[in-house]
Amino acid sequence: MTLRVGIIGAGPSGMAQLRAFESARKLGAEIPEIMCFEKQPDWGGQWNYTWRTGLDEFGEPVHSSMYRHLWSNGPKECLEFADYTFDEHFGQPISSFPPRAVLFDYIQARVAKSDLRRYVRFNTAARWVDYNEQMQEFTLTVEDLATQTTETHVFDKIVVATGHFSTPNVPAFEGIETFPGPVRHAHDFRGAENLAGQDLLLIGSSYSAEDIGMQAHKMGAKSITFSYRTAPMGFGWPESVEERPLVSRFDGRTAHFADGTSKDFDAVILCTGYKHKYPFLPDTLSLKSRNVLYPGNLYKGVVWQGNTSLFYLGAQDQYYTFNMFDVQAWFARDVMLGRTALPSFEAREADVRDWLQRFAALSTHDDEADFQTAYLKDLMSHTDYPAFDLDAVAVLFKQWMKDKEEDILGYRDRIHRSVMTGTMAVNHHTRWLNAMDDSLERYLHGPSEDVDTGTLAMLTEGERQVSGR
Amino acid sequence: MTLRVGIIGAGPSGMAQLRAFESARKLGAEIPEIMCFEKQPDWGGQWNYTWRTGLDEFGEPVHSSMYRHLWSNGPKECLEFADYTFDEHFGQPISSFPPRAVLFDYIQARVAKSDLRRYVRFNTAARWVDYNEQMQEFTLTVEDLATQTTETHVFDKIVVATGHFSTPNVPAFEGIETFPGPVRHAHDFRGAENLAGQDLLLIGSSYSAEDIGMQAHKMGAKSITFSYRTAPMGFGWPESVEERPLVSRFDGRTAHFADGTSKDFDAVILCTGYKHKYPFLPDTLSLKSRNVLYPGNLYKGVVWQGNTSLFYLGAQDQYYTFNMFDVQAWFARDVMLGRTALPSFEAREADVRDWLQRFAALSTHDDEADFQTAYLKDLMSHTDYPAFDLDAVAVLFKQWMKDKEEDILGYRDRIHRSVMTGTMAVNHHTRWLNAMDDSLERYLHGPSEDVDTGTLAMLTEGERQVSGR
Repeated sequence: MTLRVGIIGAGPSGMAQLRAFESARKLGAEIPEIMCFEKQPDWGGQWNYTWRTGLDEFGEPVHSSMYRHLWSNGPKECLEFADYTFDEHFGQPISSFPPRAVLFDYIQARVAKSDLRRYVRFNTAARWVDYNEQMQEFTLTVEDLATQTTETHVFDKIVVATGHFSTPNVPAFEGIETFPGPVRHAHDFRGAENLAGQDLLLIGSSYSAEDIGMQAHKMGAKSITFSYRTAPMGFGWPESVEERPLVSRFDGRTAHFADGTSKDFDAVILCTGYKHKYPFLPDTLSLKSRNVLYPGNLYKGVVWQGNTSLFYLGAQDQYYTFNMFDVQAWFARDVMLGRTALPSFEAREADVRDWLQRFAALSTHDDEADFQTAYLKDLMSHTDYPAFDLDAVAVLFKQWMKDKEEDILGYRDRIHRSVMTGTMAVNHHTRWLNAMDDSLERYLHGPSEDVDTGTLAMLTEGERQVSGR
Repeated sequence: MTLRVGIIGAGPSGMAQLRAFESARKLGAEIPEIMCFEKQPDWGGQWNYTWRTGLDEFGEPVHSSMYRHLWSNGPKECLEFADYTFDEHFGQPISSFPPRAVLFDYIQARVAKSDLRRYVRFNTAARWVDYNEQMQEFTLTVEDLATQTTETHVFDKIVVATGHFSTPNVPAFEGIETFPGPVRHAHDFRGAENLAGQDLLLIGSSYSAEDIGMQAHKMGAKSITFSYRTAPMGFGWPESVEERPLVSRFDGRTAHFADGTSKDFDAVILCTGYKHKYPFLPDTLSLKSRNVLYPGNLYKGVVWQGNTSLFYLGAQDQYYTFNMFDVQAWFARDVMLGRTALPSFEAREADVRDWLQRFAALSTHDDEADFQTAYLKDLMSHTDYPAFDLDAVAVLFKQWMKDKEEDILGYRDRIHRSVMTGTMAVNHHTRWLNAMDDSLERYLHGPSEDVDTGTLAMLTEGERQVSGR
């Protein structure tokens, strides 16, 4: 009997799983019966920008935390697909930090050229999974959101590819219930245009805080105050930006900080991270973890220890993204097809323990990039995913972090060389700080006449040299 | 074997179900084994104000659509409990339109004085319900949100008391995805303090639009524009308030309306209603309905036609609220206990059909109030819920609607007589439009010295007379 595989989610991870099977099929393998369920009306996961916040048109939690003017905050050369390069897609070199629409175009095209859409049931949410020990099979109940009908399917294997940057972690602060201005989590941030002239408080000190803060600066916020729990980010902020310790309480529009200082604010954005959340899974199958580089209970970061017919993709915190999801999907596929034999429970436990120990020993961001590189190397060695030079990608990550230390507002103007093709990225026609139209058309076809084409001259020779490294 | 009853939700409806059984127990009846599951940390349903929007601290959709400065928009005399009057609770007459904290105090005290809290599992969300035809029992899987553990319980009867004013209905409008200011649904509205000086667009023409609009006016919004799909509300608005037909599209911060006019806005609130949503129910058990006074498939508005072991409370659009939930809960209890025999499927269908026909014939708001009065009379005749003069309540509803027509900003300053006790409400010490501190303390104990105690003088003699009717 043909294996039956259910994939939950058609974001980059779910799409990677579909492509992994497609890749095997093209090489002559018999592949499973596959169904993929996606609650959004289209694939792309986080990359589907929506103006909606909170709950979507069907009353489901909005998946995407994307904002209108997001640009990649890591070099595109670090997330390039080995089997579909930027050169192949764009036919011309582009810059290293493209805006949302450009990256989405790239990941969509990769799946669009194969006929994988037929596997996906859109507007369909996973409701409940049960595992039948005796039959060794799952029942997955889903709801077709448009028709409000529920149906139950039986699968031998389930792939959870629903991501973990959709459910906001929202701590409470004394007095926040009467802060008069808008209070929202980064998940519900869509654009900073309306923050011009405002005093903005961002609670948090990771990627969301940093990037939303710089968005707000770009859009003309009067001041930006970051509030950190553990340590400041310490970048070379522009003058209107500062960091303070954690908010101890709010009193009206005044925030009081742990160092005894206070300041009045117009708006608060909680950049306090995300939670793993799998409301469709019983606790025996549900990953419970903070957002870390190596969650426990997942062999090779992918196979659920409690039931090896269950797989998670992209469950780690991420330096690598798209190409890591790919390798994970290739690995999951090979386990499902029996090409890769799983060792005993004890051997898998030992492997997980080993990685958790290595993880616990990390101290710097460079260590973290190296750790995930090592993880990916290990995983890749078990699959036929097209090999690429992971050490070279690790070098890019470290250079990128160094660039951010040097110039938090300018690191996106620097360029990097593709590990896949050797192609050097080109300087974008407009510096990120000045690029207010970040559409695909404007990005690819250059500034129109109403845009100051002199902006490139603002890159000094020294900067060009750094960028050209 | 003792009957096992599962109640989902501990808002006013779920609390009514607990009290219905408690009332029978006190009179000597043997009552079922009862478990009630509430995803919020406290009971009260909509009346639990939270500053949170979108998803709550556990990543569950926020239940409450309550805003900080909400005052009852209907006379308290229309929602008074027959078995726990305002006189009994407050020990003194109060005004007819108390603020949130005062009403919440009333409904909480009513359950607090009995020992009903022991039945409720808080922070526990319903995940999935299955019905076993052969065993004639339900399995209800719930998640303890704090511990992330799931458990499955077996019940003979399930009561769905989760409400239907929590899942926003959010239509899309061309260009809304790039409106630069905040766009939110009324469900996520928490206060209008930050709308002072702003041009505000409210899409919708029902209670949410009207009340949030007047809140924003009270808090100093520069202008308020209501946009209606079908017909304007047509109240006697203050000068800065107007009504226009539906938005046809947004272009930046400009809204274009169906009549060809346009206007620039700072913020948009979608007062576009709510959806019935029961993500824990298979479609065979799930009510699908718009928000209407008589949803189909519910015998006496309570018993699910497809499975008479399933009950819905408060599933109707509402003139009556708390006391209607009570009567429904008393009826559901009597069906569960076998005190009230259910007629055949066909007879129940005929009854539902009859009510749907009456419903279809309604044309005015007065008709609607009469319709729900008739429904409640019918339902009450089947229970031992303490009788009260429903016709007198219907008169109150009609007077209230007339008062709103006369003075949309002042109807809350009018007073009404209790149907339960005959007690006449008293004028509040401050007019609603001037009452900026709406805490329980200030409400009950009068204006403090820093408040202009002269506000009462603003009630003209003529107004007092109307109020004193």
